[in-house]
Amino acid sequence: MIRNKVFAKETLSIQTELVLPNDTNVLGNLMGGRLLHWMDIVAAISAHRHCHRVVVTASVNNVSFNQPIKLGQIVTLHGKVSRSFNSSMEVFIDVWVEDNAADKKIKCNEAIYTFVAVDQLGYPIAVPELIPETDEEKDRHQGALRRKQLSLILAGKMKPADATELKALFTI
Amino acid sequence: MIRNKVFAKETLSIQTELVLPNDTNVLGNLMGGRLLHWMDIVAAISAHRHCHRVVVTASVNNVSFNQPIKLGQIVTLHGKVSRSFNSSMEVFIDVWVEDNAADKKIKCNEAIYTFVAVDQLGYPIAVPELIPETDEEKDRHQGALRRKQLSLILAGKMKPADATELKALFTI
Amino acid sequence: MIRNKVFAKETLSIQTELVLPNDTNVLGNLMGGRLLHWMDIVAAISAHRHCHRVVVTASVNNVSFNQPIKLGQIVTLHGKVSRSFNSSMEVFIDVWVEDNAADKKIKCNEAIYTFVAVDQLGYPIAVPELIPETDEEKDRHQGALRRKQLSLILAGKMKPADATELKALFTI
Amino acid sequence: MIRNKVFAKETLSIQTELVLPNDTNVLGNLMGGRLLHWMDIVAAISAHRHCHRVVVTASVNNVSFNQPIKLGQIVTLHGKVSRSFNSSMEVFIDVWVEDNAADKKIKCNEAIYTFVAVDQLGYPIAVPELIPETDEEKDRHQGALRRKQLSLILAGKMKPADATELKALFTI
Amino acid sequence: MIRNKVFAKETLSIQTELVLPNDTNVLGNLMGGRLLHWMDIVAAISAHRHCHRVVVTASVNNVSFNQPIKLGQIVTLHGKVSRSFNSSMEVFIDVWVEDNAADKKIKCNEAIYTFVAVDQLGYPIAVPELIPETDEEKDRHQGALRRKQLSLILAGKMKPADATELKALFTI
Amino acid sequence: MIRNKVFAKETLSIQTELVLPNDTNVLGNLMGGRLLHWMDIVAAISAHRHCHRVVVTASVNNVSFNQPIKLGQIVTLHGKVSRSFNSSMEVFIDVWVEDNAADKKIKCNEAIYTFVAVDQLGYPIAVPELIPETDEEKDRHQGALRRKQLSLILAGKMKPADATELKALFTI
Repeated sequence: MIRNKVFAKETLSIQTELVLPNDTNVLGNLMGGRLLHWMDIVAAISAHRHCHRVVVTASVNNVSFNQPIKLGQIVTLHGKVSRSFNSSMEVFIDVWVEDNAADKKIKCNEAIYTFVAVDQLGYPIAVPELIPETDEEKDRHQGALRRKQLSLILAGKMKPADATELKALFTI
Repeated sequence: MIRNKVFAKETLSIQTELVLPNDTNVLGNLMGGRLLHWMDIVAAISAHRHCHRVVVTASVNNVSFNQPIKLGQIVTLHGKVSRSFNSSMEVFIDVWVEDNAADKKIKCNEAIYTFVAVDQLGYPIAVPELIPETDEEKDRHQGALRRKQLSLILAGKMKPADATELKALFTI
Repeated sequence: MIRNKVFAKETLSIQTELVLPNDTNVLGNLMGGRLLHWMDIVAAISAHRHCHRVVVTASVNNVSFNQPIKLGQIVTLHGKVSRSFNSSMEVFIDVWVEDNAADKKIKCNEAIYTFVAVDQLGYPIAVPELIPETDEEKDRHQGALRRKQLSLILAGKMKPADATELKALFTI
Repeated sequence: MIRNKVFAKETLSIQTELVLPNDTNVLGNLMGGRLLHWMDIVAAISAHRHCHRVVVTASVNNVSFNQPIKLGQIVTLHGKVSRSFNSSMEVFIDVWVEDNAADKKIKCNEAIYTFVAVDQLGYPIAVPELIPETDEEKDRHQGALRRKQLSLILAGKMKPADATELKALFTI
Repeated sequence: MIRNKVFAKETLSIQTELVLPNDTNVLGNLMGGRLLHWMDIVAAISAHRHCHRVVVTASVNNVSFNQPIKLGQIVTLHGKVSRSFNSSMEVFIDVWVEDNAADKKIKCNEAIYTFVAVDQLGYPIAVPELIPETDEEKDRHQGALRRKQLSLILAGKMKPADATELKALFTI
Repeated sequence: MIRNKVFAKETLSIQTELVLPNDTNVLGNLMGGRLLHWMDIVAAISAHRHCHRVVVTASVNNVSFNQPIKLGQIVTLHGKVSRSFNSSMEVFIDVWVEDNAADKKIKCNEAIYTFVAVDQLGYPIAVPELIPETDEEKDRHQGALRRKQLSLILAGKMKPADATELKALFTI
């Protein structure tokens, strides 16, 4: 039975990857394209846990690669849905790398992907509402609206004047 | 010998991929993560052709997946540097899929990646200036500045009031 | 700094995999060999988290494949060290598959791998002691001793008469 | 036409693999998981040659990794069915690595996998009897019974007192 | 609509590959087998662009590997149909590697593959005629006839005396 | 110790592959490029067994793909050196596919690759002489000379008039 509401924590998905030779560039660092691929899979699993339907990647918002990840390092990816719209879900992916010397994890990437739930013919279908609980979940849930407006403006589907959340940033 | 200026057309890189079973989801469509990986490689080659140095992915700007690509279809990716900054290069990736019945290519994706040129220790190094020639190259070269401002604001490194190009959008 | 004792829970590693076409046999079920490979990686990461050294697979104890896993299903693997000996660590891997209809996970495999910590020349080195806390962790910690005796007997390195834990099973 | 009896030698399958970078860990040695995967494939082919039906991995008995295998080395795997039961087959896998200096092969692994023959719906079906001929084939055929008892006891499906072959080991 | 004639230039396909660790042998050079695989894909796409039908590799003519290609280098492959026969197409593949120091491409391989167009049951079907335009296209178109005769003789399907083009070579 | 002479049978290498989804085209048949890759590996191992040095692919002679190989089928490749020249070795690869219904193997491909033995800097080095024993080994050993002449002529390195073995074919 598909429910109407899903808690953010229920959509958490975790993936642990070992950086192998074929994942690295000539400097011995993880290639961006491989990480983008891993993030897509972990985010797709989160979106799937939200709606229990086939999900397809709709867009990738800004992703930054701040810190090189080395051959042989262990990378942990956490995906969690931040907000759902009619048939789409925004998913945050947080990426950590383990620092052996210090015995701790270091945050090295953060990305936002959007997925759409589709039926067997590929048509969009409605998804449950997402309920954020922690402070971080609520912040990201709130920000999702702003990002949606920005993406609609950039795609020419919304007038800047109607993007109330964004406009505030520039007119104060 | 590394030159000071490079024409946009010199950075064009082309990749043709055949969609294989392992690239597809349960609907038989190309998975977003695989396409993101292919786009990273073709864009890295364009950035490399611009500066002839090791390049690393710095960020991925908005990517939209508008149209499903099917198992067995032929996908063509074109990468071209749109603008260079101190040590970074913005690269556009255009993706087409071949429509057998109509004997023509259909544009199905457009993405923007940013790369940084680094030396053998991973430190950023200066890259040549990019010279746009065609109308499309000039448009994208111009837009790169606006995208740079937006990304600096989103990262909290620039005040919205200083983003002159962007501000105009919201205050008219 | 490497510690003398490590809690079992600190060695937990989680991996989520999507079953792709190339992972399946002609019946569309996940091939055993692929699952063995995934279990090796998740177990190696647990062993690594226990000792923060290079670890190599020393042996695989009995693994049973009770239930077919289908193309497109989401598989979650949990690895956790169950006991450490001088330079070796026994790791349990539990595998679940998600049942979409019932919105729950189903346990489908359980396996035990043993790893050895080695230095850069490949020689075994001492690892910290493992501290079990929960009932399951204590059970598995206790059973590890029995499995060690059995493996020594099977390898001809221990006389059955000296395997006190095992002997009890057969002589009552 | 499916026969009632099959000679062990008819089930021999041979695989030769070259150890590539992505098969190795940070010490440049073949990863255990990759070898487990290769052993599964060569064993599945042996089982298939025994019964000419779809076969699925049922279990992996103890596998030991005694000796590191290096990047660039040539690994040869031999699979051969050692005994068949109702619908299952026990398969031995012997692994050699070539020593270039000495111009000879060195035995480096031995493993035992069990497969089940299934029909197109996944239900177990009967397989032919296996006829051992050489001394090694007879030894392994004989030992298969003892291993079967041990696995039934460990799975709680047989009482130790009924495992006549095994009991002898502990009560003398 | 499938046309009767296709210009050689319409069948051009381009692929750019980055040599990754798993593509290389122990000297760090691209393995021949990987290049053969890449050439097959780029040639298949050219053949497909000629006839817009499923194409299968029929044969590989002489391929020479004159010059090692290194890990991390960028390889560009161009495929173009050189001549079509009833249901088969001969495809030339030219391979370049980029020389960073000299900022130019170096031709490093040339290969000829033959493909057959088949219907959904695998039976050969007629393909359009190929129209060469440039001098190189005309040379290769002409040579295709000679290669066809040679291959028929080697396969024992044509008498040397009937191979007029070839005979001239040896009897002058 | 490297010997002066090696028997053909000592260079035999055997590989067994299972055709997986990613190895197939849209008709569900093994793609030519994948088979070319497998043949390269098995032939490289044979060449290596002949000279115990690093070997690199020098050329691929005519390869024909006569018969489709299906998804899920078992493919067996046999490589064997047919003749050695100064620093090069010609290797025959025979490919069989198993026919389950008839319980027998069907020959489906035959290919000839040439390898060169190189030192650690990539320079060619001398290899032992090959001694053929069976009729087939002798036939192939004899034919290698004719193929060598043909390849020298095609490369413009030998005058047709000097190719005594070949000339006989055309002038009778």
